[in-house]
Amino acid sequence: MYRIALLGAGRIAKVHVESIVGHARTKLAYVVDVDRAAAESMAAAHGARAVDADAVFGDPEVAAIVIASSTPTHSGYIEAGAAAGKHVFCEKPIDLDSARVRECLANIEGSGIKLIVGFNRRFDPHFRHFKAELDAGAIGKIEQLLITSRDPGLPPAAYIRASGGIFRDMTIHDFDLARHLLGEEPVELWASASTLVDDEVAALGDHDTTIIGMQTASGKLAVINNSRRSTYGYDQRIEAHGSEGILSAGNVPESTVVHGGAHGFTSQKAMHFFLERYSSAYRAEWDHFVNVLDGTVEATPTGADGARALAMADAAYESLESGRRVTLAFD
Amino acid sequence: MYRIALLGAGRIAKVHVESIVGHARTKLAYVVDVDRAAAESMAAAHGARAVDADAVFGDPEVAAIVIASSTPTHSGYIEAGAAAGKHVFCEKPIDLDSARVRECLANIEGSGIKLIVGFNRRFDPHFRHFKAELDAGAIGKIEQLLITSRDPGLPPAAYIRASGGIFRDMTIHDFDLARHLLGEEPVELWASASTLVDDEVAALGDHDTTIIGMQTASGKLAVINNSRRSTYGYDQRIEAHGSEGILSAGNVPESTVVHGGAHGFTSQKAMHFFLERYSSAYRAEWDHFVNVLDGTVEATPTGADGARALAMADAAYESLESGRRVTLAFD
Amino acid sequence: MYRIALLGAGRIAKVHVESIVGHARTKLAYVVDVDRAAAESMAAAHGARAVDADAVFGDPEVAAIVIASSTPTHSGYIEAGAAAGKHVFCEKPIDLDSARVRECLANIEGSGIKLIVGFNRRFDPHFRHFKAELDAGAIGKIEQLLITSRDPGLPPAAYIRASGGIFRDMTIHDFDLARHLLGEEPVELWASASTLVDDEVAALGDHDTTIIGMQTASGKLAVINNSRRSTYGYDQRIEAHGSEGILSAGNVPESTVVHGGAHGFTSQKAMHFFLERYSSAYRAEWDHFVNVLDGTVEATPTGADGARALAMADAAYESLESGRRVTLAFD
Amino acid sequence: MYRIALLGAGRIAKVHVESIVGHARTKLAYVVDVDRAAAESMAAAHGARAVDADAVFGDPEVAAIVIASSTPTHSGYIEAGAAAGKHVFCEKPIDLDSARVRECLANIEGSGIKLIVGFNRRFDPHFRHFKAELDAGAIGKIEQLLITSRDPGLPPAAYIRASGGIFRDMTIHDFDLARHLLGEEPVELWASASTLVDDEVAALGDHDTTIIGMQTASGKLAVINNSRRSTYGYDQRIEAHGSEGILSAGNVPESTVVHGGAHGFTSQKAMHFFLERYSSAYRAEWDHFVNVLDGTVEATPTGADGARALAMADAAYESLESGRRVTLAFD
Repeated sequence: MYRIALLGAGRIAKVHVESIVGHARTKLAYVVDVDRAAAESMAAAHGARAVDADAVFGDPEVAAIVIASSTPTHSGYIEAGAAAGKHVFCEKPIDLDSARVRECLANIEGSGIKLIVGFNRRFDPHFRHFKAELDAGAIGKIEQLLITSRDPGLPPAAYIRASGGIFRDMTIHDFDLARHLLGEEPVELWASASTLVDDEVAALGDHDTTIIGMQTASGKLAVINNSRRSTYGYDQRIEAHGSEGILSAGNVPESTVVHGGAHGFTSQKAMHFFLERYSSAYRAEWDHFVNVLDGTVEATPTGADGARALAMADAAYESLESGRRVTLAFD
Repeated sequence: MYRIALLGAGRIAKVHVESIVGHARTKLAYVVDVDRAAAESMAAAHGARAVDADAVFGDPEVAAIVIASSTPTHSGYIEAGAAAGKHVFCEKPIDLDSARVRECLANIEGSGIKLIVGFNRRFDPHFRHFKAELDAGAIGKIEQLLITSRDPGLPPAAYIRASGGIFRDMTIHDFDLARHLLGEEPVELWASASTLVDDEVAALGDHDTTIIGMQTASGKLAVINNSRRSTYGYDQRIEAHGSEGILSAGNVPESTVVHGGAHGFTSQKAMHFFLERYSSAYRAEWDHFVNVLDGTVEATPTGADGARALAMADAAYESLESGRRVTLAFD
Repeated sequence: MYRIALLGAGRIAKVHVESIVGHARTKLAYVVDVDRAAAESMAAAHGARAVDADAVFGDPEVAAIVIASSTPTHSGYIEAGAAAGKHVFCEKPIDLDSARVRECLANIEGSGIKLIVGFNRRFDPHFRHFKAELDAGAIGKIEQLLITSRDPGLPPAAYIRASGGIFRDMTIHDFDLARHLLGEEPVELWASASTLVDDEVAALGDHDTTIIGMQTASGKLAVINNSRRSTYGYDQRIEAHGSEGILSAGNVPESTVVHGGAHGFTSQKAMHFFLERYSSAYRAEWDHFVNVLDGTVEATPTGADGARALAMADAAYESLESGRRVTLAFD
Repeated sequence: MYRIALLGAGRIAKVHVESIVGHARTKLAYVVDVDRAAAESMAAAHGARAVDADAVFGDPEVAAIVIASSTPTHSGYIEAGAAAGKHVFCEKPIDLDSARVRECLANIEGSGIKLIVGFNRRFDPHFRHFKAELDAGAIGKIEQLLITSRDPGLPPAAYIRASGGIFRDMTIHDFDLARHLLGEEPVELWASASTLVDDEVAALGDHDTTIIGMQTASGKLAVINNSRRSTYGYDQRIEAHGSEGILSAGNVPESTVVHGGAHGFTSQKAMHFFLERYSSAYRAEWDHFVNVLDGTVEATPTGADGARALAMADAAYESLESGRRVTLAFD
């Protein structure tokens, strides 16, 4: 049984706490949050204690920390965790600044702790099946990848302000998925973006509608389309074309019910948003982390995966501004 | 917190134990099984005790029993539970003999206990949505109902021998679903059956492939098709036609992945069998029973529902033998 | 180039005239109709002549006749055609009375003419593909067949009055399709029927909503469901279950457009009715008849096929009245 | 009845000849081709005459010409047709060189003849329905457009050599469709392309796998993906996202048959290629041209439409070479 400390008690922490307490081999020991009342409420509901971060790092019984706090705290917590010998599950992103991410990863090098970054989509059972088919050669060699990722609605202005922009906040998941599925690093990247959903987004210096193109060294091509608006549910689709076929993974409908009438046939919306759509992905991700703690599987997605997805977001902004295809050079 | 005793430690009991221990408001107190080792293993895994049935009925702290033991024990357990003031969740069927079912229900009349019969499909979220749409008038007045229910494979010979025949064992779920969805009792019933999957089924006096037709007093028509063979997963579909449209609920695929190539496009099989397909139905069924214990919802499906579905199975056998449309007369 | 005489100038004749004039190897010579103006208008539009039936039978240049006139004239025209040595394409049914059908077929025996009966669905490209897959063993041995056939609306009262009832008018196509696909004659049949669409149908002594079950000697089972009401287009689906899988042929949507929004995803209705849905079937049927004239393919569906489908309709009525499974004994 | 001269007797001419002779109001008068035998064979089959182009332009009875000859002849034929007062249906492209296209369009200005360019997809019934829904506001204001267009296989080397490259030969249809559906001119465009299907394509200086992004002045975004390889049929899909929903038009399967078994469910490939997929588009396109001749509808797609799609192809090449987003400035 691994004793776990959860740093953060907000929306995404609520997802992780269910995974931690629902897993047969992990136990929630501590909850830490700047909002002490939130931490205490969550801790009480699960037989844990609300403490300061120092108490977590000072307790030799804590095996691992889950970082689900606000983004600016992530890298410091990773470093503190590494210093204290705690394994780390860190929500994306490690930081909004690529230089700080590199510094953080350099700082924990040699610490011997295991770190995984929370790219939850890699653990979705549908996308895992997709990846397994790709790896099994179902479509021969992959040639093109099309990722559609559209949120049901805009986040609040405060969230947008702190998000680092749509590429670092939302597309970062698609960047990671593209790298994961292409099986080869993109070397060039394009982006176009606009503000069509809400003028306030432009006022905040962000975008809400985007397309991104990329190419790998061997010529594989990928396209991402994003929007902060989808009336028909959380749109999460992937499609790969290969030398021998096509592989796709569509949306998961809210139910299988179809209603036919004079209007045609109506099937159900896609599941509302990430909490519904990726509920099993979060559980599988946690189970994966437990296996990482056991040492039976590799610690992935790695810190480098987090850094590279962020570098792609940086490149997308550079392309927007320069009007150029930007060369990606991962270390 | 309701203290629950589980009678039975076999396959279906394993489903219910997960619901009981996974529910925030129920606690597994006892497990009873003729196979004492099975009972002890299950009890130990969940912090409960393996005891004899008498201990269950004698403990005033037990709020309810879950009957998941072999069919011949069901009715006696219901009666004993009622005598001891325990509420009852009973797996279908109450008994294979309709006279015994009527006797049992008469015996517990006036006991004040609540009884529900485990027709799990009523609680499947997809079928619940289907029923809600029907009730909301999405297709006007229902005119025809088509139920497809096909198992992935034959049960073992020992199971078939004790099952009461395909109509009492398998179609009984479809009979209940037909009554539930038609909103009106069938008054006439037809059946045809044959043995196409395995000759051994015929040797055991059973069938493996059937069609059943029925009609209500107002002329609504329903058809069920069954088979003990389905290579493409557990086939569980319903389709209703009404004055203003059609409503259908299809199978749930194992994943959303679709593979296209020179052969065409291949999507995934239906979920394998009832454990996979109805996992959320079992959880919702248990939550419903907790609400029944609270007194906030009606205790359904009732004992009478169990009796009527069984009477339809009896009628189906009568039709097979007589070659006639059989009149159904529920009390 | 075969010279063709078309007997009838009504709705279904309009379908056949397009096939005749659109085929590279047939030429419309004559049109015959009791409504002389209709015959003349149709003839004029296609460079043919409106004449009496006698003129057709007396012209040695006429290779074949197409009988698309009112049902009571069919059998007499077949006999007259055979006497004159004309090959015959006859719309279903040969007659509403099975005894008269048998008499007609006996009368033309030995005439040497070729006769096919217009069961158009056998020629639908989708259903042909379905049949080819069945024949190729795609699902092993067929075990069950489910046919859904639902008209978009009621025909006029005058049509119903002359139709012989829904089983002889509408289900007859499904009876033929069942025989065609099962590959084995049904030996037992039962039927249920009611009037749910319009009370006037009952006043006319007909039904509008039916289910029919049947069984072959080896135990294969088939079910047909019919309705004279479908708000979502002409519903024409078949589904076969076999020892190794399932084969289905669904409806053809009016277009591929799908509209998603807050209501879910809406796809298009099925094509409206037989003229739209079976337009290519009618052309393929005609091309088949030309091949029959050439002598390169068998003359099917045969007169016996027509007789047997009608006998099944008779049996369905007998089952409705007697409440029994009716034994089918084809000669 | 309009008398039509067909210039060209090759593959695409064979498509158009069917439309011309199958239309109630057009008559094929002449066929012209450098391959005189091909012209004579086609003319003979349809009661027309094989002549030189001069004979066409000199015959005052010819209402219109259809230019389906090799690309380098198109612009000259347009000019000669305009000089002779013949209306023109010209296969795309007008020329591979944008300057020559502009010159040609300038040369025919004031001639009074009607010219349409053969962007056949605008006339596909599915895409027309899609456009009608867009125009009716089904998804509110369009925000993103995704076009998938993938050929089943590579054309011969000789074809590629004369094609002007994939953007001018294949993507040009998608460029036109994007303009047609966006309802607003793109102002920026970027492209990536590679050679993954066959090394010979690279040797010929062409590409076989591409992605193109574009943006309109108001910020609408569009993405095209192309490939010269598709094992599952001709892949022709469009998807539009708007402020109120999504609209898609998928592929048309070869039949509705679905086969289920232990492997899952297999549906049919998309129709093989443009001759099959767009057969009704070609007929509708011709009917549209007849209406243009009547003067009852506008002559679209116009010469300017042809010029703009070609300019987008030019811009795509410029983006490939420069690594920049290219600004599109239509006159």
